[in-house]
Amino acid sequence: MKLIRFGEAGAEKPGVIINETYYDVSSLVSDYDENFFAGDEINKLAESIKTADLPIVEKNVRLGAALARPSKIICVGLNYKDHAAETNAAIPTEPILFFKATTAIVGPNDDLEIPKNSVKTDWEVELAVVIGKKAKYVSEADAYNHIAGYVLHNDYSEREFQLERNGQWVKGKSADTFAPIGPFIATPDEIEDVHNLRLWLTVNGKTLQDGNTSNLIFNVPFMVSYISQFMTLLPGDVITTGTPAGVGLGQKPTPWYLKPGDVVELGIDGLGSSKQNVKAYS
Amino acid sequence: MKLIRFGEAGAEKPGVIINETYYDVSSLVSDYDENFFAGDEINKLAESIKTADLPIVEKNVRLGAALARPSKIICVGLNYKDHAAETNAAIPTEPILFFKATTAIVGPNDDLEIPKNSVKTDWEVELAVVIGKKAKYVSEADAYNHIAGYVLHNDYSEREFQLERNGQWVKGKSADTFAPIGPFIATPDEIEDVHNLRLWLTVNGKTLQDGNTSNLIFNVPFMVSYISQFMTLLPGDVITTGTPAGVGLGQKPTPWYLKPGDVVELGIDGLGSSKQNVKAYS
Repeated sequence: MKLIRFGEAGAEKPGVIINETYYDVSSLVSDYDENFFAGDEINKLAESIKTADLPIVEKNVRLGAALARPSKIICVGLNYKDHAAETNAAIPTEPILFFKATTAIVGPNDDLEIPKNSVKTDWEVELAVVIGKKAKYVSEADAYNHIAGYVLHNDYSEREFQLERNGQWVKGKSADTFAPIGPFIATPDEIEDVHNLRLWLTVNGKTLQDGNTSNLIFNVPFMVSYISQFMTLLPGDVITTGTPAGVGLGQKPTPWYLKPGDVVELGIDGLGSSKQNVKAYS
Repeated sequence: MKLIRFGEAGAEKPGVIINETYYDVSSLVSDYDENFFAGDEINKLAESIKTADLPIVEKNVRLGAALARPSKIICVGLNYKDHAAETNAAIPTEPILFFKATTAIVGPNDDLEIPKNSVKTDWEVELAVVIGKKAKYVSEADAYNHIAGYVLHNDYSEREFQLERNGQWVKGKSADTFAPIGPFIATPDEIEDVHNLRLWLTVNGKTLQDGNTSNLIFNVPFMVSYISQFMTLLPGDVITTGTPAGVGLGQKPTPWYLKPGDVVELGIDGLGSSKQNVKAYS
């Protein structure tokens, strides 16, 4: 199943994609939220859409983030060796975790707004995991039972706020529009091997990131298990698994960053693509 | 106004304290959540309780956290000079920010559960601020217009997870039960001077923390304004403002931490007190 949310910002409705057509499922479920991912609703929806006569939605509709606001977004830092190397950081011996404010979430094709006083707004294509069943002290072996699906995410990062403003990365990760999530959540049956997906990102058509989830230092079940040793993961929570090389901070000989008018496009095999036009805060 | 939530965990009802008596206001408001803090509901409630005939609630009822789960808990680190000194940290030149998972929230007198594999579970009495009106790029002068109230918080911290497990403090701040919030939210009119409140904490009756908010490095309106430069604060969001000296990590000559059977009590002038019995994870 491929889950979308569509319509005006703040008033999105749930939908599904079947054979590249968008369908409205708001008559079947209220939203893709904690309650939906927790229970049987997701399975019931999969059954219902086989036979229901669903209204078609125009393909030019605005897509919202592919899920309602979760309790948290947990980010894994420096989870690709090439990205750790380009930022002159050591390979982590265990996962680095940080949070991103959920107020940063927007639709996959909404504008990126460069924050006030920002000079180093950077991009990061990432595979994100959506939690299904609540997870506390789960084992790696059991981790997949706690996953509802996968989704494309651009973990926008203001490097000065993150690294030069007195500590803790959350400060550079949480501006509004810094978390375009979508176009759709793919349930695990849609993805043959989550550890063999190409992920890429371009700025103004130039390829800057081109990696593969086969190069993750810590893989998906390990991360779900690891994070659940430190906090409880709720249904709908998002884990974003780190970015491969090619961010602005890693550009040689000189790092460079986004400016108004730039266009960022990104995608992951099987999870579609997204596009953000960059604008100044106004 | 003093706002409480009472009843079984997960099914709390909203209430108020008037002249030390608890009243049920669930006939007037549904919960103390984003919607409540955002709008006129809080002002309407203040009017209604003057004349409404409210059911009295037994004083021995369980208290829940004084607000429903917010979008985020933003913590300010090392915001008292004496605490920075005791942990051998530099005085921050600008606020250190980090997040605490909202899944850590519990009632003010619920048990503290020491996480699995924890050997350094520590205490931190803190003044917390509850956001009223949405805040993005607000000035210091305007900050008080975005505050709904104040509340007592114990920012429990696992020091090994926070400081010795490969970076970013959130890892040591987010275990279940690590955020007892309450007993009540006091609206600003209840507090004469938020920058002159004694705050204290005892373990097994021995006073370990005894500070005053007059010693905050960064004061309340500065913090609201500062944080709103990096992320949008939503109604009901919690800012926890840092802890004074006297945490376990700061004990001389040898730091020491909580163990099952310990009893932690804490309080702030005008914001009541709370008590957590310490137990092992089971």
